[in-house]
Amino acid sequence: MSGPDQRPAPARLSGRLYGVGVGPGDPELITLKAVRILRSAPVVAHFAKRGSAGNASATASPYLAPEQTVLRLEYPITTEAPPAGVSYAEVLHGFYDRAARLLAGHLDAGRDVAVLCEGDPLFFGSFMYLHDRLAACYPTEVVAGVTAVGAASAVVGKPLTRRDDEFRVLVGISDEDSLVEGLTGADAVVVMKLGRNLDKVRRAVERAGLLDHAWYVERATMAGERALPLANVESGSAPYFSLVMIPSRLTR
Amino acid sequence: MSGPDQRPAPARLSGRLYGVGVGPGDPELITLKAVRILRSAPVVAHFAKRGSAGNASATASPYLAPEQTVLRLEYPITTEAPPAGVSYAEVLHGFYDRAARLLAGHLDAGRDVAVLCEGDPLFFGSFMYLHDRLAACYPTEVVAGVTAVGAASAVVGKPLTRRDDEFRVLVGISDEDSLVEGLTGADAVVVMKLGRNLDKVRRAVERAGLLDHAWYVERATMAGERALPLANVESGSAPYFSLVMIPSRLTR
Repeated sequence: MSGPDQRPAPARLSGRLYGVGVGPGDPELITLKAVRILRSAPVVAHFAKRGSAGNASATASPYLAPEQTVLRLEYPITTEAPPAGVSYAEVLHGFYDRAARLLAGHLDAGRDVAVLCEGDPLFFGSFMYLHDRLAACYPTEVVAGVTAVGAASAVVGKPLTRRDDEFRVLVGISDEDSLVEGLTGADAVVVMKLGRNLDKVRRAVERAGLLDHAWYVERATMAGERALPLANVESGSAPYFSLVMIPSRLTR
Repeated sequence: MSGPDQRPAPARLSGRLYGVGVGPGDPELITLKAVRILRSAPVVAHFAKRGSAGNASATASPYLAPEQTVLRLEYPITTEAPPAGVSYAEVLHGFYDRAARLLAGHLDAGRDVAVLCEGDPLFFGSFMYLHDRLAACYPTEVVAGVTAVGAASAVVGKPLTRRDDEFRVLVGISDEDSLVEGLTGADAVVVMKLGRNLDKVRRAVERAGLLDHAWYVERATMAGERALPLANVESGSAPYFSLVMIPSRLTR
């Protein structure tokens, strides 16, 4: 593992690190600033799962030119179980260390590096693992992006929060009782990270008395977009780009 | 007050209503989709306080042409107290009714109307009062935008939420005990609608043991932007475009 103090001192004019939010998926929901930075950066990096182009890369591809260097940072593990004797956290930690070193090489050589981030870079984004490792050593700028939360509200077409609403973002990996508690105390809720937790999340929403107001939104603003009442969703696993949204209590 | 059922039936080809998020303030943090719609809509509407150009209008003005009709929807009350015998809610209700009728006239005549919205239209935005009145009667589309929350995270430069964080958005108008409770239960928090509640919010943050981790952000991405530890903010009132942000407990 490499910390900032173990890296050679950067050249006098190091490159600039950008975390660029590319928005929720529709390439038109990227900001002008993101496009400007993507077009001007000699090096563009993005995370991707093995066997996948990466959604952030697909969203940004219309704005990239052939002469730019594209670094594909491929997650080492695609299945749930890491190799025997190694924790998933350790594997990921090493992966992020190596990715940060790769980027640092370009930054040290004076090249700006733009990291593509689905949604917003600092809202549940993998960019923050690079930010943790590099922001103290290189000039760093984050370009905020439209999140999946905003995209889902627009697709469902209901105000998410209004007036004095308390809004919560919960994650599906929490246990069922915590989810019920979180759902009950809020005026508007989004539940992210559904995956294999979809059925548990639905049970929690039902126990909180909110099933009639809950929407399931999949791939908002992307090809294959779906939005339907959570009560009508088939049982099973939800894809990565999915969430549950319960709009403002004042709108239901 | 006018409900949809009291308005004359729309012409066969009515215009399309757009709620267009223009982002947090920096004109470059608008999306390509928002720019396309603003450029193509014959009528552009925006809310504004008396004596102010309106921030959404300022953000979008680089993208508007002289031949477009701009409707300034000016709030009837700028001071805190409404006229004697009239509640603030009643005054606002009538104002939104009139604004909706004005837009309906253009929509009935077949003209698309784009309503400029600071941040995201469905996240604490005034657009929703027009959406309430018009979305059932006219084809309506919302364009999600970058919120002040994303802008503030980028300005502070700390990850807002990561991994299994529970994130909450609270409003400063809540009472102090509710704020303490809301702050205590979350892993990352934003408090909006500070205004005259700034000192109360700071007391609540301190009681929740979070003052060392709390940031105050004013006019993020706009001229006059400020970001400083909440502990260092002068006592008094905060402007409209301000919030308190407590980044992920995993990042502090």
